[in-house]
Amino acid sequence: MASISKRLLNVPASPIRKLVPFAQAAKKRGVKVYHLNIGDPDIETPKVMVDVLRTWNTNPIGYDQSQGNPKFIESLITYYHSLGYRFIKESHIQSTIGGSEAISMAMFATCQPDDEIIVFEPFYTNYNSYAVVSGIRLVPIRTSITNGFHLPERSVIESKIHKKTRAILICNPNNPTGTVYTRQELDILVGIAKKHKLFILSDEVYREYVYDGRNHVSLLSYMQKIPKQAIVLDSMSKRYSLCGVRVGALITLNQDILAGVLRIAQGRLSAGLVDQLIAAKLTDVPVSYYKNVYNEYNRRRDILFKGLKSIPGVTVPKPEGAFYTIVGLPVDDSEKFCKWLLTDFQDKGETVMLAPAAGFYATQGLGKTEVRIAYVLNTRAIRRCIELLKKALLNYSKIHKV
Amino acid sequence: MASISKRLLNVPASPIRKLVPFAQAAKKRGVKVYHLNIGDPDIETPKVMVDVLRTWNTNPIGYDQSQGNPKFIESLITYYHSLGYRFIKESHIQSTIGGSEAISMAMFATCQPDDEIIVFEPFYTNYNSYAVVSGIRLVPIRTSITNGFHLPERSVIESKIHKKTRAILICNPNNPTGTVYTRQELDILVGIAKKHKLFILSDEVYREYVYDGRNHVSLLSYMQKIPKQAIVLDSMSKRYSLCGVRVGALITLNQDILAGVLRIAQGRLSAGLVDQLIAAKLTDVPVSYYKNVYNEYNRRRDILFKGLKSIPGVTVPKPEGAFYTIVGLPVDDSEKFCKWLLTDFQDKGETVMLAPAAGFYATQGLGKTEVRIAYVLNTRAIRRCIELLKKALLNYSKIHKV
Repeated sequence: MASISKRLLNVPASPIRKLVPFAQAAKKRGVKVYHLNIGDPDIETPKVMVDVLRTWNTNPIGYDQSQGNPKFIESLITYYHSLGYRFIKESHIQSTIGGSEAISMAMFATCQPDDEIIVFEPFYTNYNSYAVVSGIRLVPIRTSITNGFHLPERSVIESKIHKKTRAILICNPNNPTGTVYTRQELDILVGIAKKHKLFILSDEVYREYVYDGRNHVSLLSYMQKIPKQAIVLDSMSKRYSLCGVRVGALITLNQDILAGVLRIAQGRLSAGLVDQLIAAKLTDVPVSYYKNVYNEYNRRRDILFKGLKSIPGVTVPKPEGAFYTIVGLPVDDSEKFCKWLLTDFQDKGETVMLAPAAGFYATQGLGKTEVRIAYVLNTRAIRRCIELLKKALLNYSKIHKV
Repeated sequence: MASISKRLLNVPASPIRKLVPFAQAAKKRGVKVYHLNIGDPDIETPKVMVDVLRTWNTNPIGYDQSQGNPKFIESLITYYHSLGYRFIKESHIQSTIGGSEAISMAMFATCQPDDEIIVFEPFYTNYNSYAVVSGIRLVPIRTSITNGFHLPERSVIESKIHKKTRAILICNPNNPTGTVYTRQELDILVGIAKKHKLFILSDEVYREYVYDGRNHVSLLSYMQKIPKQAIVLDSMSKRYSLCGVRVGALITLNQDILAGVLRIAQGRLSAGLVDQLIAAKLTDVPVSYYKNVYNEYNRRRDILFKGLKSIPGVTVPKPEGAFYTIVGLPVDDSEKFCKWLLTDFQDKGETVMLAPAAGFYATQGLGKTEVRIAYVLNTRAIRRCIELLKKALLNYSKIHKV
């Protein structure tokens, strides 16, 4: 019989989504599930963006340009200029179907099959899927909850560089850890990239979300110094609560990369016209929107951090950015615990869904007692989730003696 | 210096889009360009679909389910049932970002790197891009303009099957040739697939567009007989003039394939929510819409066919389906001619853009005197295009003695 490809079997199930059937079953039983498992914000999409839909008058809804919708690209240029990167031009941008496609394109463009990209684990779990689809290997370097998942010393990173290493991929601010890398850390990475002739891919989807007076150090600030090696990956999903609108971008000064990814983009014809026109309004979003969103995430972070710290046995570094944190729990196996939350636990008809952290590690056995929490619900819901988690852990420890 | 991957260089430029810069330059000079180069219909998107936008009230616009939006999947089931394929269930469908993603997923799911898929050339050019990205080889079997690009004998097809052959990929009705395969041709392909344990991938994006009383023979009608081997690839773009709305589907009874492509889909989180909700209205599109669209394409086909036949030296088989045709022109190199149409030719400030056919062939040297024409403009425009082509060919033959 015709058999499926072996590589299809190697595509991992999403640890963020694999418990979804249990959540659905819980909902069918009438249990309310708080979703802290996925970075799908409850914050409103800016009105000016939704108005693109409500005032739509283009018919037919035809293909867009493969490089991207000109209005969307123009709005991205204005945005990057406003951040101080005034060298960014139309010819440096490829519009993508979400940040996902930007990452896939960057992997394909920089690596032959079996080539390696260095990542710092725990890392955004979907990098694994794109790597399998691209036929490349992610080489994980461990970071630890004890120092807030900051990067190890230069020598540790360099020890992982071999003949097949092509790139270093970071997510900054980090999903899933909430870590914001310092200027010093970026300097070290760029130094390594220069010395070893590697690409640096920087996924900066959470660029605006850095707390406690930190500055975000973008790879864009190094782009003119290493024009052939720097690739920035971006998405509009998290900045404007547009997860269901599939728009992102790949930015580089490397014209060979851009010419190549444009050919890939031509193959899939165009990104969505409607989605890109929604995103093109990003320059019309009022400053007050950003401020409110930022303040809201900051408040949620504070409540979550204080709440988690008050639970016995829970390890939690203070998240520095993004809207995620990796938390150590007093359980034997966080996947079992997360499943149990959905199948066996409830308090007044409510429970909470978390993402087991093991799927964010490439090294077998790591992250087994950790979970990722996305603080994408309002402060009241977060307070309730803390309460639920506290009760659940107490309950669970009685049933499963650790 | 860090260098790009070799495979990126192998991704071909789209022959449909590579002359776009010359078209843009022509437009800047004030020349009107009739686009017969791309299957981007001028026909209106159904009102009931556009109304999804105009009455939008979901905020935030969050992620959808990875398998697909439930309403969209439900509408697809209703649609396939209405065609007579009542065995299709929710568990047989993966929603995709356009037909493009469905084809990419099917290639990845059926082939290891360097495995082979048999295609009949000329074929839809973007198959080349997906094949390079998937690391697989397309093995072309030639079909000819002289018999309307119908399939060769069974023995010719079987002679191309080797150890590495995994699948046969057809596009039916065919883009770029307009060929509609007969029941007999499908029987032969299914027989070959059974005997040699191959997958059959059938791209049926133009299913409704078959002319002169023909019936479309869908692979769906064989699906229960070869449940593990049949994969149907679909898209809403051409049926509802929704090219800029990126929605398609992969349909199979093979649960291993479905489980695997769902994992790929989880990696890219979800297809667009807005796009899927637009497409979900497909069951509400009035029958009169289909009838009008069908009749319109049929009229265009007749005018195009008659017009082209009247031009000396032009070879044109009568298109049987879809809205494309491959046409032989009395020129030495159709790419040069197509470029010349944009750079040097105009009549009363107007010219026409065609797609050079060489890019639709994998075998070097084939299709050099052919072009693909998409009859996606109204009858008046098509009449004018015939006139322009006639004048251009006359002009061109004077300058470039063939």
